[in-house]
Amino acid sequence: MPIVYLAIACGVIAILYGLLTSRQVLAASPGNEKMQDIAAAIQEGAQAYLGRQYRTIAIVGVVVAALVLYFLGRISAVGFVIGAVLSGVTGYIGMNISVRANVRTAEAARGSLQGGLTLAFRAGAVTGMLVAGLGLLAIAIFFWYLTGPGGMSLDIPEQKRVVIDALVALAFGASLISIFARLGGGIFTKAADVGADLVGKVEAGIPEDDPRNPAVIADNVGDNVGDCAGMAADLFETYVVTLGVTMVSIALLITAAPAELGALMSLPLAIGGVCIITSIIGTYMVRLGKSQSIMGALYKGFWTSAILAVPAFWFVTNWALAGYGGMAATFTINDFSGSPIVFTALDLFWCMLTGLAVTGAIVWITEYYTGTNFRPVRSIARASETGHGTNVIQGLAISLEATALPTLVIVVAVVLAYQLAGIVGLAFGATAMLALAGMVVALDAYGPVTDNAGGIAEMAGLDDSVRVKTDALDAVGNTTKAVTKGYAIGSAGLAALVLFGAYTTDLGIFFPELNVNFSLGNPYVIVGLLLGALLPYLFGAFGMTAVGRAAGSVVEEVRAQFRDNPGIMAGTSRPNYARTVDLVTKAAIKEMIIPSLLPVLAPIVVFFAIRAVAGEANGFAALGALLLGVIVSGLFVAISMTSGGGAWDNAKKYIEDGHHGGKGSDAHKAAVTGDTVGDPYKDTAGPAVNPMIKITNIVALLLLAALAHAG
Amino acid sequence: MPIVYLAIACGVIAILYGLLTSRQVLAASPGNEKMQDIAAAIQEGAQAYLGRQYRTIAIVGVVVAALVLYFLGRISAVGFVIGAVLSGVTGYIGMNISVRANVRTAEAARGSLQGGLTLAFRAGAVTGMLVAGLGLLAIAIFFWYLTGPGGMSLDIPEQKRVVIDALVALAFGASLISIFARLGGGIFTKAADVGADLVGKVEAGIPEDDPRNPAVIADNVGDNVGDCAGMAADLFETYVVTLGVTMVSIALLITAAPAELGALMSLPLAIGGVCIITSIIGTYMVRLGKSQSIMGALYKGFWTSAILAVPAFWFVTNWALAGYGGMAATFTINDFSGSPIVFTALDLFWCMLTGLAVTGAIVWITEYYTGTNFRPVRSIARASETGHGTNVIQGLAISLEATALPTLVIVVAVVLAYQLAGIVGLAFGATAMLALAGMVVALDAYGPVTDNAGGIAEMAGLDDSVRVKTDALDAVGNTTKAVTKGYAIGSAGLAALVLFGAYTTDLGIFFPELNVNFSLGNPYVIVGLLLGALLPYLFGAFGMTAVGRAAGSVVEEVRAQFRDNPGIMAGTSRPNYARTVDLVTKAAIKEMIIPSLLPVLAPIVVFFAIRAVAGEANGFAALGALLLGVIVSGLFVAISMTSGGGAWDNAKKYIEDGHHGGKGSDAHKAAVTGDTVGDPYKDTAGPAVNPMIKITNIVALLLLAALAHAG
Repeated sequence: MPIVYLAIACGVIAILYGLLTSRQVLAASPGNEKMQDIAAAIQEGAQAYLGRQYRTIAIVGVVVAALVLYFLGRISAVGFVIGAVLSGVTGYIGMNISVRANVRTAEAARGSLQGGLTLAFRAGAVTGMLVAGLGLLAIAIFFWYLTGPGGMSLDIPEQKRVVIDALVALAFGASLISIFARLGGGIFTKAADVGADLVGKVEAGIPEDDPRNPAVIADNVGDNVGDCAGMAADLFETYVVTLGVTMVSIALLITAAPAELGALMSLPLAIGGVCIITSIIGTYMVRLGKSQSIMGALYKGFWTSAILAVPAFWFVTNWALAGYGGMAATFTINDFSGSPIVFTALDLFWCMLTGLAVTGAIVWITEYYTGTNFRPVRSIARASETGHGTNVIQGLAISLEATALPTLVIVVAVVLAYQLAGIVGLAFGATAMLALAGMVVALDAYGPVTDNAGGIAEMAGLDDSVRVKTDALDAVGNTTKAVTKGYAIGSAGLAALVLFGAYTTDLGIFFPELNVNFSLGNPYVIVGLLLGALLPYLFGAFGMTAVGRAAGSVVEEVRAQFRDNPGIMAGTSRPNYARTVDLVTKAAIKEMIIPSLLPVLAPIVVFFAIRAVAGEANGFAALGALLLGVIVSGLFVAISMTSGGGAWDNAKKYIEDGHHGGKGSDAHKAAVTGDTVGDPYKDTAGPAVNPMIKITNIVALLLLAALAHAG
Repeated sequence: MPIVYLAIACGVIAILYGLLTSRQVLAASPGNEKMQDIAAAIQEGAQAYLGRQYRTIAIVGVVVAALVLYFLGRISAVGFVIGAVLSGVTGYIGMNISVRANVRTAEAARGSLQGGLTLAFRAGAVTGMLVAGLGLLAIAIFFWYLTGPGGMSLDIPEQKRVVIDALVALAFGASLISIFARLGGGIFTKAADVGADLVGKVEAGIPEDDPRNPAVIADNVGDNVGDCAGMAADLFETYVVTLGVTMVSIALLITAAPAELGALMSLPLAIGGVCIITSIIGTYMVRLGKSQSIMGALYKGFWTSAILAVPAFWFVTNWALAGYGGMAATFTINDFSGSPIVFTALDLFWCMLTGLAVTGAIVWITEYYTGTNFRPVRSIARASETGHGTNVIQGLAISLEATALPTLVIVVAVVLAYQLAGIVGLAFGATAMLALAGMVVALDAYGPVTDNAGGIAEMAGLDDSVRVKTDALDAVGNTTKAVTKGYAIGSAGLAALVLFGAYTTDLGIFFPELNVNFSLGNPYVIVGLLLGALLPYLFGAFGMTAVGRAAGSVVEEVRAQFRDNPGIMAGTSRPNYARTVDLVTKAAIKEMIIPSLLPVLAPIVVFFAIRAVAGEANGFAALGALLLGVIVSGLFVAISMTSGGGAWDNAKKYIEDGHHGGKGSDAHKAAVTGDTVGDPYKDTAGPAVNPMIKITNIVALLLLAALAHAG
């Protein structure tokens, strides 16, 4: 199967790119001693937090690994551990490059805007390529090993099942770690950010990132552990789950000779592989043009990767299926819809283009809703003139409205992909979306680096012109961050439908005698939909409360430091940064556990509860409906939170650029309130919905497998 | 059919009660001349607004009536007109009693708290009994006429269909008017409220209801046209739709001899009838005890009605089905689940008790989430200490969390009622809930009266002790208002499931050859769920934007009046109240139209769009899923908005009671922001979701009927 080797080779190239580029980043000057001191404090805090976070997650991970081992066997347990460990590794490396690039970006921005952009973007690209590269290598090597040296034949149902279970378990490992990382990091970053802003900007009247604020280092640590490490783990999860479930859906739904099936199962890996190459080419296109537009520079990189992906998809599809008719290769799926669907490789190619188009559309829509050039952000800025209340009202209105276009895009994509190639078409659409993950993560991970660079510039007392440059870089980062979240949740929408397809197919395989009624007329389906729809709300409530509570303790800590040590505000003595970091660390770790377990336990509880009152078939019906309820409601909760939060943030930036009275005006104060509200929306509760959706679905699949093994 | 006569008699009693009680209210002293002047201004504004609103709605109503006439025939058109006109009448009468009771309550509160409570509650009870009485009379007389003098036999399918269509059309008329009234009134009241607060409390630093504020009359008008007239139309709609759809589901699902079927179809009317009697008894129990607890007094009334309902349900069920075995009467339904469900009248009785229990649970949960004695409101108050941002964050967290318990209650009720008597069981549960509408509306409509009374007391310069009493009455009104909304949306959850059952049954009757796949595995079902889930979000966005925009123009108008006429702030000249009222009137009317048409047009557009790309069966599948998507998502949007808004409002009141620094503190300012945000949440966007859900469902039913007639 040469196609798997292609994928592995591309994965290795991604790792090499990461190593070389990180060496380039580290070779840049880390600035003067004061800057290095600050950077060291941030680095130390980030490492301490991540160390403690991973130790805590490890406890949960070991317990779950033991359960996987007991219920699903050795190979699945190995898959789980690979997914979990690599998810952690991705976050860890991302954080490590980010905490070193920040100070170097600040130093480079003393030279030129292009210099700062290049350094920050390179750091982002390292994280991006590692996410895609490690994700691809994990699945490709595991799949290659199982079906090669591992001796599993796709022709023998029991052995095919081992491969399927192992891939699902690998996805589960990645998802489980990533929800902790996303939520823990999200709580950390926003508790520190909100707390620092409230007590610094609002109470003490000192600027953001003022070194006299005892929470300022914690705020900067948060950028690295939440926006960088948490995001990287999340996208790693999305990548692995999407590619994995695409392969699983092929294995489950398509009947073909083992070699042909193996070739088709390798195609998603190849798609991921070639997009690593187009993404690497794209990174070299990120250059300011004559217009000096930062967003334009980033777009050049993104569009290069996306456009080059079109011929690349054509090429690998042809190559992978060369022995079976190339683009004319024909497959038949017998899914739950009853009537078999016949499609060709060409249809799959069109599905991939649909995936690319969805990505492009989401980028455009997100920019519309969160960019400062368009109606939504400007309407929030205008509403700030009449006070805090109207700012928040308009922001909430925009957050609700922002769900409409992405939903329509996803609906069109579902219809199109399904008409072309059924559930497998959806899976390939999602895979094509995720194939660009390397580039998308690069665009996102560049944001926290510039945010930190600005903080370091401020704290080290660099010339104001440096802060102006880093602020310009950071403003664009708000939009790219929102784009990544829209992209992740949009792909989750497609992936979850594929996961649901896998669930129903598995149900038919494991319990052929059971007549499960998934019709909307079955009240247990309604019950499942309602309970599923509840999960993102409850999860969001936990996340928001956690941030509010932790931010409150930051405020109290900082007030206490100001009170006990008046030298801090006078600038004669140094605040105790470490104590604040430590406080936020403990709070974030404590607060992340219960909500993260919600999507793991909910499917299990709902299944057994409904089975107890209405029998096994209705238990499975309710569980299946719960999976769709989560995605239907989660999509809206996540998009409204992430887009709304981004719009609030940039409305504040728009006012700071001198509109509606500018910095210090009443409108600005109102906009700061909106920004504060948007913080946990966009960086804690909203993005964590994405792994939550996937975990719920994967747990259901594993529950099914465990019940079948047990039965 | 004596049972229908019982219902008609009870309806007449409700009207008589309304007439007598309103005479009592009007007999009370309307206070001094200044108070009467102010009350006259409010009355004039409210009448002017409602007149213009109804003229606008009439245009839409005439067009829709013509469409109903064309597609469904004369009898359905008559039903539509009855529903529409009575919905309007209910709102109109409610507003009229409210604008007369306000000043009398202020006057009575000069005497004693009990005096104020009695007057305000009596005014509310008039509205409540008219809602229930007119609703019951409309359906009962129409049904009696059609199946009696009208000569329609339930034995002849074509004639039974005429009865069904007519009942659905009557519900449609009520729903269509009520969404306009709810939304238009909601935009009016909150635009005026938010605008007045922003420019008065925040900018000019004058207290709420200060007569120098040019928006103060508009604010008080809003209480009457939104919280009273809009709410009354909404609950009238809920009442009519619930009873109507219960009768329709019986007609569609149960095969029995015409007399027996007629008896069972009359049972919901009888349930409504006896609860009017228990509600009237309940109104006499509203009396302050030794503890002087206002909430306690209201609860005495509510619980009396609810507890007396239990034997009353037993009695009417026995009586209605006396000829067919009484409580042992047995029925069989052949719904879409495939296997016939057999149930007895006793099962139905248990379903009714389930409905009562749901009502009780929702009252309790809503009080927990919006009352000042419990964790949620106090947590928002505490969060206000650290600023505007944390107040809003905590409020949003509570609003998300507040969806959990009601969802669980509804889920348990669905399972229970369905296990007892299938879809018909759900319908009877919902009917039992709605039977208490008279009492629930009384508790709600009392709120705006006391709110207005406080405003009049302030403007007329009455002694502060009067305002203290009206404030105490008003604070409880916040909770009872939230209760009504939770109750309406909870019952909508059950009713919508029944409507969906009617939809699928109708589909089987009209298009027996069509094999519609409602399974969650059908991608067009997913598409429908997603599009349905989008509607409440889009609708919410429209509502919030409308309030923000209209409030902004109020702010500008008031600023202009202050600027052009400095005598206003000096207290030497009177502001131009009428100009502000006129401005808000025009804005509210303009803003209500597009969003109100959304639920009417969406089902039609989605059906034809999906039919065009995927055939008729998938068009119907997507439409059916859309209906469930609306309810699944709408339930959460509505509960989170109404509970969250109530909690914000009472967190402000809690601080004003002297906690966390009290009035004028920074925490209070933050709480005012939260209250402002909560205003359009709880009084505009949130409550209008309820009629929206029902309209979507009813339009789908009518579309089906129209297609069948056309085909």
